[in-house]
Amino acid sequence: MALETKSLWKAHGGMQGVYSHASAACACAMTFAVYVPPHAEGQKLPVLWYLSGLTCTHANVMEKGEYRKAAAEHGVIIVCPDTSPRGEGVADVPGDWKLGLGAGFYVDATQEPWSAHYRMYSYVTAELPAVIAASFPMADMGRQGVFGHSMGGHGALIAALKNPGRYLSCSAFAPIVHPMTADWSRPALAAYLGSDETIWRKWDAVALIEDGARFPELLVDQGTADSFLADGLRPWLLEEACRAVSLPLSLRMQAGYDHSYYFVSSFVADHIVWHAKRFAA
Amino acid sequence: MALETKSLWKAHGGMQGVYSHASAACACAMTFAVYVPPHAEGQKLPVLWYLSGLTCTHANVMEKGEYRKAAAEHGVIIVCPDTSPRGEGVADVPGDWKLGLGAGFYVDATQEPWSAHYRMYSYVTAELPAVIAASFPMADMGRQGVFGHSMGGHGALIAALKNPGRYLSCSAFAPIVHPMTADWSRPALAAYLGSDETIWRKWDAVALIEDGARFPELLVDQGTADSFLADGLRPWLLEEACRAVSLPLSLRMQAGYDHSYYFVSSFVADHIVWHAKRFAA
Repeated sequence: MALETKSLWKAHGGMQGVYSHASAACACAMTFAVYVPPHAEGQKLPVLWYLSGLTCTHANVMEKGEYRKAAAEHGVIIVCPDTSPRGEGVADVPGDWKLGLGAGFYVDATQEPWSAHYRMYSYVTAELPAVIAASFPMADMGRQGVFGHSMGGHGALIAALKNPGRYLSCSAFAPIVHPMTADWSRPALAAYLGSDETIWRKWDAVALIEDGARFPELLVDQGTADSFLADGLRPWLLEEACRAVSLPLSLRMQAGYDHSYYFVSSFVADHIVWHAKRFAA
Repeated sequence: MALETKSLWKAHGGMQGVYSHASAACACAMTFAVYVPPHAEGQKLPVLWYLSGLTCTHANVMEKGEYRKAAAEHGVIIVCPDTSPRGEGVADVPGDWKLGLGAGFYVDATQEPWSAHYRMYSYVTAELPAVIAASFPMADMGRQGVFGHSMGGHGALIAALKNPGRYLSCSAFAPIVHPMTADWSRPALAAYLGSDETIWRKWDAVALIEDGARFPELLVDQGTADSFLADGLRPWLLEEACRAVSLPLSLRMQAGYDHSYYFVSSFVADHIVWHAKRFAA
């Protein structure tokens, strides 16, 4: 689990790093970003995972997400993984931004040729946390939270719903709440998981809740001017699923905001404060 | 002075726009970014100019500068011009990042072929302010400040020193304080202004102060891990020039910070607060 440090910058009193390592889950080199806020020697800090959306790498939120100021103020480590395996021999459909590179959908693929590398669920929930625990001694792996944007909001919701004991908190920006019924995600689920849609339910936030998964509470921000709102995102489906089982959801419709990082960066500090409160509880 | 709106995003409660227009000063189409913070109808807001560094366009700071949160909190409009003329027929030296495209150095060129388009001083201090006044009715052009990064820090310093009545405040991140004696800026000054170095003194912060220019006070942040510190930037030269004439300078050496936007974004809120205080005085 040797890490290669690709970049390291001081920012907001802490250190923003970019690292790569040989991933066993994805069977390729993987790159990720970690922000460690300023802290006293020996201090242990909670870890908040940010899962990114379609077409992104670790770099989009690192450059445009504006998370460091709040992370520094509240003493939270932010880890930003990539969104798919990459490199020679990794399956892809060039020109399709919703399948293959940049579109791992945070599932463990079972179908050829995807199953050889596309194991992003195992990567972000198991392998990379072990890497962080081994390489960042200030990381308190007993206090983890997860959030994300769009496809990464879906990733955050399923990671939390499938592991309610591991994550203390979960929130999302414009998440894909029910990918198995959205046109833009069904082709990826079919490619990665096969045609049996009963299996897809284990990788879908709304279906997981319908099938019994629970989490203490969820926070979701959604822009009303988001061009993907009605077709791909449909947060009201999560609202209905949560209401049916009395799972507390704070869904905030944010007037005039679109799907971009101008939206995410406007509310990322709110989310970090929200997670920090739950880490301190 | 018709503006074309290229993009418009809601962010931190205000609107981040990108616009283009036909520039008379630069004799080409120019693109710039404006952030208008949330405000009451009829409210007038001060205007803070951000001048960018070598190789940048309006977009670098717009995406990575993290200025919107503080601008929204303090009610300040942020205008981010490009760093040079661009387009068909605009002179350039391909492969030289310190001359031509992205390297206007905020001077009015007098030498062929540069003088046809490279008039960034007139553009940022006269033409674009008139465009802003005409197109943004909430802009209070009686309350303007200027800041910038690296080459844009140089631009901010000379804009303020040459127009102490127009700008109420001036600050800079890692500015080129004495470009006429720095290896990386001398070739550009020679190309744009000719070989008579007495003329260069009108476009150089240290020389302007030595020659009698004054400004009420200056704020400069400089990272100690900046790889350009000793050769290109040398803030101690500005410190000496200011001390010699009792011009108040707050020079803050920031330990461990480099020349990147991770540095700028770490202190941009400090600077906006500093300017806002002077706008309110």
